[in-house]
Amino acid sequence: MTFKNKKVLVTGAQGFIGTNLLLHLNSQYPNATLVGVDSGISKSDNKRFTAHFAEHYEIDLRDQSLKKVLANTDIVIHLAANGNVVDSISDPLSSFSSNVSSTLALLEAMREVDCSRIVFSSTGGALMGDTSPPVNEKSLPKPISPYGASKLACEGYLHAYAGSYEFNCSILRFGNVYGEFSLHKKGVINTWIKSSIQNQEIVIYGDGSSTRDYIQVKDLCDGISKATYQNLISSSVGNSNIYHLACSTEISLNTLVNYIQEVSGKDLLVSFKSSRRGEVSKNFAECLLAKEDLGFSPRISFREGIKSLYSWLDSQSVSEVNI
Amino acid sequence: MTFKNKKVLVTGAQGFIGTNLLLHLNSQYPNATLVGVDSGISKSDNKRFTAHFAEHYEIDLRDQSLKKVLANTDIVIHLAANGNVVDSISDPLSSFSSNVSSTLALLEAMREVDCSRIVFSSTGGALMGDTSPPVNEKSLPKPISPYGASKLACEGYLHAYAGSYEFNCSILRFGNVYGEFSLHKKGVINTWIKSSIQNQEIVIYGDGSSTRDYIQVKDLCDGISKATYQNLISSSVGNSNIYHLACSTEISLNTLVNYIQEVSGKDLLVSFKSSRRGEVSKNFAECLLAKEDLGFSPRISFREGIKSLYSWLDSQSVSEVNI
Repeated sequence: MTFKNKKVLVTGAQGFIGTNLLLHLNSQYPNATLVGVDSGISKSDNKRFTAHFAEHYEIDLRDQSLKKVLANTDIVIHLAANGNVVDSISDPLSSFSSNVSSTLALLEAMREVDCSRIVFSSTGGALMGDTSPPVNEKSLPKPISPYGASKLACEGYLHAYAGSYEFNCSILRFGNVYGEFSLHKKGVINTWIKSSIQNQEIVIYGDGSSTRDYIQVKDLCDGISKATYQNLISSSVGNSNIYHLACSTEISLNTLVNYIQEVSGKDLLVSFKSSRRGEVSKNFAECLLAKEDLGFSPRISFREGIKSLYSWLDSQSVSEVNI
Repeated sequence: MTFKNKKVLVTGAQGFIGTNLLLHLNSQYPNATLVGVDSGISKSDNKRFTAHFAEHYEIDLRDQSLKKVLANTDIVIHLAANGNVVDSISDPLSSFSSNVSSTLALLEAMREVDCSRIVFSSTGGALMGDTSPPVNEKSLPKPISPYGASKLACEGYLHAYAGSYEFNCSILRFGNVYGEFSLHKKGVINTWIKSSIQNQEIVIYGDGSSTRDYIQVKDLCDGISKATYQNLISSSVGNSNIYHLACSTEISLNTLVNYIQEVSGKDLLVSFKSSRRGEVSKNFAECLLAKEDLGFSPRISFREGIKSLYSWLDSQSVSEVNI
C-alpha cells in the first residue's frame, strides 16, 4: 500500500508547516490527492507555493461546510493552531477556541463523515512545562501555559476518540520547528534573523540560558509523513500513539545568537529583559520511539538549518514584515 | 488560620457531592461564608438541605453575573460537571461544553476578580482509561471516553493557570463516589439499589468482573475539606498539586450485586449485556500522597456505606424517580 489514490487532508495548510508538508507529500507521493483547509487567520500568503497541486479551502473548522470537504478523506493531518505561547497567556480564551474547540469540531465532523484516521501536531516543550529534560512519551505532562494546556486537551480527546469511536490517532509532539515558508511567523529564530538582517536589536528574555530542541521543518515533515503512512496502513482500529519529533539536542538562546552572528557575519546588538511567566526554561526530547517505530531520523544540522533559513529570509522582502 | 471569615464558593452546589460538601463544611467550619453556585441543570432538589446556612445562586458559569458572586471569594471548590461517561460518548460536544468550556469561563472570571485559589474535582478512573491499576499521581493519563478527556483538559488548564497566573490549584481525582443526597444520580450503585427496592431487573454490562474503587461521599468530603484547608493556608503561589481520593480497594460489579443482595435480603434478578466502549474495565487508585500531605484517611467500609445508602434510598420516594 502507498498513498496512491488516497485523499489526505491537511489543516493549517497555508501555514508554515502546512506548506512544507504539502510540498513534501507531493514530491514523495505524487499520486495522492492533497487537500488543504485553512481559516486564513494567519495572513500567510503561502498558498501560492502549493496551489498548483493541492485543492485549497479557506474555512473555519467549525463551519458546517467542512463536512463536504472532508467527504471520502482517508486521513487528516491536523496542523491548524495558534502556536504562540505568549499570545495564549494574554488571551487564553482565544487560544482555547482556536486550538481546542476547533479540534473538537473537526473530530465531530470526521465522525459524521466516517473518517477515523488523524495525525495531530502536539508539542513537546509546552506540554511538559518545567519537567526536567529529556522528556519522552512516558513523561508526565504538566503545561505551564494555556497554549500547552490546549495541546494536552486535544491529546486527551484523541485518546478518547480512539477509545470510544475506534479512531486511529497519531499524536506527534514537535520540537521547536524552523525553516523556509515561515515569513509570517514570530518565533524567536525568525524574529532574531530578521532583526539581524535589518540591523536591529535582539531582545533576550531571561539570561539566555533557556534552551529549546529545534528541528528543521524538512526533517519534521519527513517524520509527519512517516507517521501518516504508519497510521494509513494500520489494519487495527482504536489506537492512539504518541511520538516526539525533535533533534534531541539542547540549544540555548545564547548559542542561537552565536549561530546567527556567525552566519550573518555581523556584530549583533543584544539586550536582556526579565523572563516571562509561562515560558519553559529547559527543553529537549528523546525521540527513540519515533526512530524505532517510524524510522524517524532528522538529518539537517542546526548550523546548516540556520544558514539556509537566513539566506531564505534575506531573499524575501523582509522589510515589509512587521517584526 | 482556619476557615473563619473565609468565603468559600462551591460550584455544582445543588448536586450530590456539592450538597454533602456544604453540610460537611458547615458542620466543621460554622464561621465560614458558604456560597453555592449551580446551573440547575441536574434537576436536583437538594438545595432545601443547605439553604438555611449557604447562599445559593442558580447561574451558568459562563454567565457574566458570575463575577459579582465571585467577588471577595477566598477559594473556589469546583464540582460542577456532567459526570456521566455514557452521556459523554453519545454527546461529546455537550460534555465538552459543560465540563471544559465552563471551567475555562470560571477560571477567567476568577482571574478578573483576583481570586486565585481553586480545588477541582477530577477523576481517577476515567482519566486513566485502561492503564493497569493501581494508578497514582505519577501514572500517565490516557482517557478512553470524552468524559475522561474533559477532566484531563481541565487539569491541564489548572496547571497552566498556576504556571502563567500564579493560581494555587488542588486537583483531586475522585474514585467512584456514592452516598446520600444522590436521588437524582444514575450511577450503577444507585440504579441497582433502586432496582432492588422496586424488584426490577439489574443489568450488568460485561461479565461483572469490571472493577471500581468506591468511596463514600462523607469520606470524600473530608478529603476535599482537607485539601481546601491546605490550599487556603499555603503562602506560596503558582502551585498545582494532584491527589487521588479513593479507598484503594477494587470492587467488581459482581461483588457489588452480592452486597446489595445481602443488604436487601432479596434474591435479585440479574441479566448480562455486552460491555460498552469507553467504559473502563479495571480501576483502583493508590492514595498515599493524599494520606501523607493531607492526612486523608477514608473510614467507612463499603458494606456499611451500601447498607446506609440502601436505607436512605428506601426512605425516599424512589418510585417517583425514573430508573
